[in-house]
Amino acid sequence: MTRLRLGVLGTGFINETYHLPALRELPEVEVAAVFGKTESKTSDFARNWGIPKYYFGEGGLDSICKDSSLDAIDVGLPNFLHLEAVTRAAENHKAIICEKPLGRTAQEAGKMLDAAKRAGVIHCYAENQVFMPKARYVKDLIKAGAIGKVTSVRSREAHSGPHSMWFKTKDLAGGGVLLDMGCHTIELARQIIQKRPRDVCAWTATLSHKIDVEDNCLVLVRYDGNELGQSEASWSAKGGLDVRFEIFGTEGTIFVDMTRETGLRVFTTGLRGGAVVEKADSTSGWLFPSLGEHEAYGFVEELRHFSHCILHDKMPSETFQDGYVVNCLVDAAYESVSARRWIIPDG
Amino acid sequence: MTRLRLGVLGTGFINETYHLPALRELPEVEVAAVFGKTESKTSDFARNWGIPKYYFGEGGLDSICKDSSLDAIDVGLPNFLHLEAVTRAAENHKAIICEKPLGRTAQEAGKMLDAAKRAGVIHCYAENQVFMPKARYVKDLIKAGAIGKVTSVRSREAHSGPHSMWFKTKDLAGGGVLLDMGCHTIELARQIIQKRPRDVCAWTATLSHKIDVEDNCLVLVRYDGNELGQSEASWSAKGGLDVRFEIFGTEGTIFVDMTRETGLRVFTTGLRGGAVVEKADSTSGWLFPSLGEHEAYGFVEELRHFSHCILHDKMPSETFQDGYVVNCLVDAAYESVSARRWIIPDG
Amino acid sequence: MTRLRLGVLGTGFINETYHLPALRELPEVEVAAVFGKTESKTSDFARNWGIPKYYFGEGGLDSICKDSSLDAIDVGLPNFLHLEAVTRAAENHKAIICEKPLGRTAQEAGKMLDAAKRAGVIHCYAENQVFMPKARYVKDLIKAGAIGKVTSVRSREAHSGPHSMWFKTKDLAGGGVLLDMGCHTIELARQIIQKRPRDVCAWTATLSHKIDVEDNCLVLVRYDGNELGQSEASWSAKGGLDVRFEIFGTEGTIFVDMTRETGLRVFTTGLRGGAVVEKADSTSGWLFPSLGEHEAYGFVEELRHFSHCILHDKMPSETFQDGYVVNCLVDAAYESVSARRWIIPDG
Amino acid sequence: MTRLRLGVLGTGFINETYHLPALRELPEVEVAAVFGKTESKTSDFARNWGIPKYYFGEGGLDSICKDSSLDAIDVGLPNFLHLEAVTRAAENHKAIICEKPLGRTAQEAGKMLDAAKRAGVIHCYAENQVFMPKARYVKDLIKAGAIGKVTSVRSREAHSGPHSMWFKTKDLAGGGVLLDMGCHTIELARQIIQKRPRDVCAWTATLSHKIDVEDNCLVLVRYDGNELGQSEASWSAKGGLDVRFEIFGTEGTIFVDMTRETGLRVFTTGLRGGAVVEKADSTSGWLFPSLGEHEAYGFVEELRHFSHCILHDKMPSETFQDGYVVNCLVDAAYESVSARRWIIPDG
Repeated sequence: MTRLRLGVLGTGFINETYHLPALRELPEVEVAAVFGKTESKTSDFARNWGIPKYYFGEGGLDSICKDSSLDAIDVGLPNFLHLEAVTRAAENHKAIICEKPLGRTAQEAGKMLDAAKRAGVIHCYAENQVFMPKARYVKDLIKAGAIGKVTSVRSREAHSGPHSMWFKTKDLAGGGVLLDMGCHTIELARQIIQKRPRDVCAWTATLSHKIDVEDNCLVLVRYDGNELGQSEASWSAKGGLDVRFEIFGTEGTIFVDMTRETGLRVFTTGLRGGAVVEKADSTSGWLFPSLGEHEAYGFVEELRHFSHCILHDKMPSETFQDGYVVNCLVDAAYESVSARRWIIPDG
Repeated sequence: MTRLRLGVLGTGFINETYHLPALRELPEVEVAAVFGKTESKTSDFARNWGIPKYYFGEGGLDSICKDSSLDAIDVGLPNFLHLEAVTRAAENHKAIICEKPLGRTAQEAGKMLDAAKRAGVIHCYAENQVFMPKARYVKDLIKAGAIGKVTSVRSREAHSGPHSMWFKTKDLAGGGVLLDMGCHTIELARQIIQKRPRDVCAWTATLSHKIDVEDNCLVLVRYDGNELGQSEASWSAKGGLDVRFEIFGTEGTIFVDMTRETGLRVFTTGLRGGAVVEKADSTSGWLFPSLGEHEAYGFVEELRHFSHCILHDKMPSETFQDGYVVNCLVDAAYESVSARRWIIPDG
Repeated sequence: MTRLRLGVLGTGFINETYHLPALRELPEVEVAAVFGKTESKTSDFARNWGIPKYYFGEGGLDSICKDSSLDAIDVGLPNFLHLEAVTRAAENHKAIICEKPLGRTAQEAGKMLDAAKRAGVIHCYAENQVFMPKARYVKDLIKAGAIGKVTSVRSREAHSGPHSMWFKTKDLAGGGVLLDMGCHTIELARQIIQKRPRDVCAWTATLSHKIDVEDNCLVLVRYDGNELGQSEASWSAKGGLDVRFEIFGTEGTIFVDMTRETGLRVFTTGLRGGAVVEKADSTSGWLFPSLGEHEAYGFVEELRHFSHCILHDKMPSETFQDGYVVNCLVDAAYESVSARRWIIPDG
Repeated sequence: MTRLRLGVLGTGFINETYHLPALRELPEVEVAAVFGKTESKTSDFARNWGIPKYYFGEGGLDSICKDSSLDAIDVGLPNFLHLEAVTRAAENHKAIICEKPLGRTAQEAGKMLDAAKRAGVIHCYAENQVFMPKARYVKDLIKAGAIGKVTSVRSREAHSGPHSMWFKTKDLAGGGVLLDMGCHTIELARQIIQKRPRDVCAWTATLSHKIDVEDNCLVLVRYDGNELGQSEASWSAKGGLDVRFEIFGTEGTIFVDMTRETGLRVFTTGLRGGAVVEKADSTSGWLFPSLGEHEAYGFVEELRHFSHCILHDKMPSETFQDGYVVNCLVDAAYESVSARRWIIPDG
């Protein structure tokens, strides 16, 4: 196999904004088919991205997974469809890439992991943040001893709220911002600390939006050497996307700011037309544009690594096993909120 | 009473570096006497700061508190001497300023509060961070509605370890970095959130130093509206003093960096002699000098407010009641570490 | 003389915003009288600032200078009145503080210097920027060798335009932004480089406002060791007041940002009422508030030094001689613009 | 022609660090041959970069230019060899990419432009800074009206000195830092202002190194609308590579910092082994690592654009004509230094 023939599931934000722009940069990948909910949106998506074949509607998911011309399936559907999609793909012996979070619960994630293992297929957990070039550089710095032994990691992702309604409905999403974005910040801290999680404690609150899931959270994960992962996520933070992490070690400190130390500071009176910068919560005043977000946030490196692994029949550095651990940590966090105590996670 | 005649207890770091430089800027205060442990050090201190009278050694504490020429006593002794000093001062009907933390435990703090109340004297809890000009400005901004409703506050103070050994001995200090510096960051968050603390959860660890108290901590305090105070303190952070706070609201965000966004960035090869900048963990490379620290960190405003209150016989904005609440939160944090759960604080 | 009795000339921006707030912090100074143009504004000003006596209108300037109860005169009038005010004050043997720029031209400045010398009075050139605590700290760092030998200095002051119309009228102001703000940035660079100016080259342009003076300038001053002072000023810069300087040396670099690295970063949606931060060119979005501007920009230290010098009959570090040199450099800069070449300045 | 067969001249810093890493990312380019001075270094270079053929020594330059299997020549030789290399390549009807500066003088650059025109070949001026993704984004912002009309541009490149000796010898390099790095900052400002240069004034000085060319410069270029380009370059700046530009407009301001607002701030005590960050003038303390420099500094986009143009037989956006204009501005700057006045450039 010299070129990966990939079937993409989903025509929403994640694929439109990140996966397709990243896949376009990989000559070793051919996006050969796409599946979406409705014909009109799916055919538009296929046309826009030059995808030769599309599937849609009831039965479409099954059909794309059975398409014998495809080597792998990239699941970019809403959370409540991950289990079904992964199961179908595994049954048809496709390599699988699944967008974060793997499941709505650890139970779901466990089923997906089992399905992939049973089928003997390559499984890739699409947690982009651990593939961010800055995150990888930081891991190399730490490995080289630049900051001694890591004592704690603070990771944060925040913005003023998600783009689609299913995120905010507990049944469909599986949870609120803790599941949706906490899964990023938890996994990033875990991959930097590189130890076994011992127990979990969390705070969640619904403080800004009128929704039935939490819009703010903080998750503490204590690791085997008593190190702390301190992971925040928020849907009520103003001032544009905030992605930062801070790593404290016995011989040094690392601060990473993905969205406000971009090297670009722009002030505009806004006189000449609308939003010159996206996702800024503001169209005038001081703005801090981020360029090449699909690359900066790790999608290109993530999908390059996954494609390489699938083409060479190797398990990637980030598998459904990792997704399952994250879901266990998220479940433990939710349990901690109810029980008001530290919880030892499964997994 | 037009000028406050103050007796200062202690000749160590806090008085040398912060209280005396701040008091010197207040024409309404006369530092009339000082008490220290040994004669030589105390007489030197008195001479250097132009203090006309000094007391020292056994009996000295009692004597300064009985000195009828003094209106007020400023307690800048190690934590294990706070209770005795405050008790003596109260018995002698002096107004009292006591450096943070009030007690080593809430029990001690409660006794001090009782002693002051029984004597009917003005009592001032010397938590400088709530008097930092930037902290006061931020509180005004919030009151004016600039960021809507506060949802969470992250406060952090960190450096690479304290200057004196008693800090690190559990009996003398009462605790490690959680008590020593956590008391700052906890109180700052509480005064910004302005609600009743509901429960407390904490992580502590000894990760860098060979000491029998913790050198790292994170304390979560949940408030009545489910807001979160997230207060970090560390004795193992490299890169110079780190004092920051972040306030997230429904209509805005405030970032305050006291020590690395000072408006001064200096690179020096270090060729020409030693440390051009203090407390930097480094004498060359990039440094971020802070000027006027006794003012920036709130000591001038704190002591101006306390002096004004004592001179006008009014209780200040920060009293032993506040110190007692902080000690209750710290006690709850320590209990939480043992119990592995959220603890409802006394007080 | 133990307390300085000061007569203040002018009720405009400079006195209202900077000089009076600074003087109020100096217990050694009594603002004993004020002179203004109209009775109503002057009496209001006197009442607001607690000044017991006021003079106004034609003859008022003469009368305040003759007031035998005053030791010194602080000239905060528009540029076109400096010469007359200084002449009157000198004739009446008052110590004189004169706000920058000293004259509209070097010829005017020379007359003021002569008048002060002839009268044998203390003369103080009120260039606040050289008294900024950060500027003084930087000078000390350089003296201590932290950055080796200075090779060049870039100084910049910019905002979106002045507050009063006389600034923009050539006859009254004497020039545009080069004279008004260039005098700050030129003198700051000169006091850091500490050498004799050799020659001057400048660019001026009127690019944003419809006025008959320049609204942008860059002035190069070459010093005796071939070091460069590179001083910018602008009345058309958006994004709030911009006061910065960069110092390059053979062993280090110093960056000072007075207005955007303030340690405070605030984002507000602006929902709750107007301008929460002043001079920001914006009432919402990201703002960088500066606190204690009258102190940060050097006015407290400047007036403390001047008062001390007058009380002790010593010439200050910044005299009319310095103001005269600055006017010579400004004149050379204007001549350079016409002549399209480097000009050797007088003085 | 579907794939560009490129011959690379030079095995030094520019090719090793920037051109070859960038070319490796372009599937449409095959580096088919390399020319170097000595056999051993050239064969090593060819082996390391997987280049199938190499030429070296006397006659090698001529031979590679005559190699009929090559479509284009990329000249990365020292400045004093540009004219000969370009002439040979043009005579052999190769498309030509020439590293900045085009010539040591405008006269040399003019000959190269003539040679390319006479031969009718595509000619590309390799000024990477105008291809930096941040520079291109900024140009788009300006075109969209975000900052109104540009009034002035400050561009700066500085470090503590070049890596190879020929840079410092006037005959070989053609000049000092003004020619070597000033050509970057002059052209970046010109391409942002997008007007005709009217006249030029410069300061140069040798302040830090014992060399016979200048190690510091500032070049002012006045444009047709009286806008100012203010371009600095230095070989004596400490604190790591400094690449910044500031753009002032009537409705906004843009600050770009390529090397110190990288989103990464690292403090290391340096205990664990040497330089964890390159080009930092320091191996400990605070460091600001830059990732993907060959991409960030524009080399990938530059060579992608040039390859595309050569493959499609179109003239690129940056040609020898632009290189010639830059040399004219540099010549005018040197003349200005001698003549002490503004000089109208040729070209």
